[in-house]
Amino acid sequence: MKIEAVDFFYLSMPTVLDVGDGSQDALLVRVRSGELTGWGECEAAPLVSIASWICPMSHSACKPVGASVLGQRLDGVEDIRRINALVRESSMDLLQADHTLSGIDIALWDLLGKRLGEPVYRLLGYERTYPKRAYASQLFGDDPQATFRKAQGVRSEGYVAAKFGWGPYGRGSVQEDAEQVRAAREGLGEEGILLVDAGTVWGDDIEKARPRLEALLACRALWLEEPFVSGALEAYRALAEAAGEVRMAGGEGCHNMHQAVNMIDYASLGFVQIDAGRIGGITPAKQVADYATARGVTYVNHTFTTHLALSASLQPYAGIEEDDLCEYPVEPSSLGSELTRTRLMPDDTGVVRLPEGPGLGIEPDPRILRKYLVAAEIRVGSQVLYRTPDI
Amino acid sequence: MKIEAVDFFYLSMPTVLDVGDGSQDALLVRVRSGELTGWGECEAAPLVSIASWICPMSHSACKPVGASVLGQRLDGVEDIRRINALVRESSMDLLQADHTLSGIDIALWDLLGKRLGEPVYRLLGYERTYPKRAYASQLFGDDPQATFRKAQGVRSEGYVAAKFGWGPYGRGSVQEDAEQVRAAREGLGEEGILLVDAGTVWGDDIEKARPRLEALLACRALWLEEPFVSGALEAYRALAEAAGEVRMAGGEGCHNMHQAVNMIDYASLGFVQIDAGRIGGITPAKQVADYATARGVTYVNHTFTTHLALSASLQPYAGIEEDDLCEYPVEPSSLGSELTRTRLMPDDTGVVRLPEGPGLGIEPDPRILRKYLVAAEIRVGSQVLYRTPDI
Repeated sequence: MKIEAVDFFYLSMPTVLDVGDGSQDALLVRVRSGELTGWGECEAAPLVSIASWICPMSHSACKPVGASVLGQRLDGVEDIRRINALVRESSMDLLQADHTLSGIDIALWDLLGKRLGEPVYRLLGYERTYPKRAYASQLFGDDPQATFRKAQGVRSEGYVAAKFGWGPYGRGSVQEDAEQVRAAREGLGEEGILLVDAGTVWGDDIEKARPRLEALLACRALWLEEPFVSGALEAYRALAEAAGEVRMAGGEGCHNMHQAVNMIDYASLGFVQIDAGRIGGITPAKQVADYATARGVTYVNHTFTTHLALSASLQPYAGIEEDDLCEYPVEPSSLGSELTRTRLMPDDTGVVRLPEGPGLGIEPDPRILRKYLVAAEIRVGSQVLYRTPDI
Repeated sequence: MKIEAVDFFYLSMPTVLDVGDGSQDALLVRVRSGELTGWGECEAAPLVSIASWICPMSHSACKPVGASVLGQRLDGVEDIRRINALVRESSMDLLQADHTLSGIDIALWDLLGKRLGEPVYRLLGYERTYPKRAYASQLFGDDPQATFRKAQGVRSEGYVAAKFGWGPYGRGSVQEDAEQVRAAREGLGEEGILLVDAGTVWGDDIEKARPRLEALLACRALWLEEPFVSGALEAYRALAEAAGEVRMAGGEGCHNMHQAVNMIDYASLGFVQIDAGRIGGITPAKQVADYATARGVTYVNHTFTTHLALSASLQPYAGIEEDDLCEYPVEPSSLGSELTRTRLMPDDTGVVRLPEGPGLGIEPDPRILRKYLVAAEIRVGSQVLYRTPDI
């Protein structure tokens, strides 16, 4: 089949708040061939990714993403890999292209799965999926009491693991951070898996991070996520050495396979966290999963948006039994929670399973798309290069 | 002073060709405070960087770049560093932001230099500048004869060094590539410094790169540039080990300081090539220059556009006497060559010197800005978020 049409839908909550909730807007990609439709999602900054799809060419290595996608053949897995490589090559100097490619690549896998009547994970070479233990991913409360109540809440809902991140963590004193982590552990109970996300708050300054380790060790945090910005390899490595049982987690900022490989090789990660909506889609995410497995590093999805993105981010490691944790957004906006007709709900043992339907097994609801759709238009000279399409 | 206004000007040749000439369009940034104006330039994809300046916020770590710049205080060097860090933090999940920040950061240094009556290199801590030997940076000819004539041409113009890149190199046979390199050496003469740029053509495949080393060694190429994509650290390291006297050069794709540091630490680079218009501006470029010096790696600018960009890219290593090569675009489009009132011309010994005027010492010509200006408009809902401003 041939890629006949690609459309971008910019969705947003009516009001976007200045908080670390990545589900407040979304960019959906629809790819069509004949009667078939595939869906994908880019993370983040919808308008900028749309611009990278339609912008005029700057030179031979800085083409709009669309130039490498529209009209391409799509008959098998190798075509997706070919298109992915073509976008990287033709848009090498267009930084945003990797995020834009991500949603397209996801939609291509969905489309091909529907065409072949197979779920994506099977096209990736996995015989079956394994259940993933959902960790309830949420922001720290404004104070330890609020965090304690949040932790109690997710425990009572049946989650076996919870992550707290961002908010005040890392911005106040070491003592205040310790109280936050203790509150999370107490609310979660002794058995729960506790994960802490520093949201890159210490830049690359290991001396700011180091004093926080004591409380993380005392409260048995399984990982400390993103103490530093993605790519600060030496800072990660040095902190990992000092952190004992607390493992380093990171990688969500990686926008290509090499960056993730470098985090595995040089940053002493225990867990590599990949967002299929940023790294260039399911194609490079699967390469990272394979590489991580070979190096003894655990793969985890990064997902903070919709269940379409969640399905896409689970596919690359769906068949790896040992990598059994899964980021699960528990506080999404109404946009994030309403968008898809089917949702991946944890069962009563707290695990999530991928759907067995063809493609991603998740369809967006057109009524909800219309509800949150943002009208946008981009003109260059007298030409309209983008106008929000009909659903 | 306060940053009162920031304007983006998208310039383009009337026709943009599908060749590796990065000077076919440009994105200029004008920053104003009171009567003073600073100029910067972003590389590349003008429309996408404009979108990242004005896009609606997605969440607290994905804000438009403008949110971290407009209204900020600018009284000294520390303010530029603070604004640079604020953009990185507030636009962390907006991939294009680093390229956009680059032009802004450059304009802030220009503005501050004008305010303080100092050239940028002095604000960076250098007492004086050292002349840089301009290497004539150009594309390989379509065949060896064309390359030979190009090499003869730059030699007769007085250049002591020349780089050939892209075009057919790396896409045909090993033999064809060898003939191209030999033609370049012959045209350049025995004395000229020969540099070869593979333009990432081998991805991360060392086996494709390795057979090319023989001709590079025989023709005494000083460096092989970008055999692999930026960040393919292990491929670079392994090829460097096999390459003997031919040093690896790379780094132009780095869009933050850590990526360049990683290329220095793990890719066995002999030369780190930084584009101030991509890495986030002069601020991180100077950090990389300091780091490279401490590690015995030679810093070189990457510049393929205007003389405004050239001045900006030279400032970060202007005071390092030993790092005396300088990329010099010899085949720019008319946009690239006409844009600035003053130009940095090599003298009769083939060296370029930075101007001693305040700031970058280079002013764009408003008539030329108007000549190449592209009208663009971006709307979200009923709001016009960007419309090409007046000059």
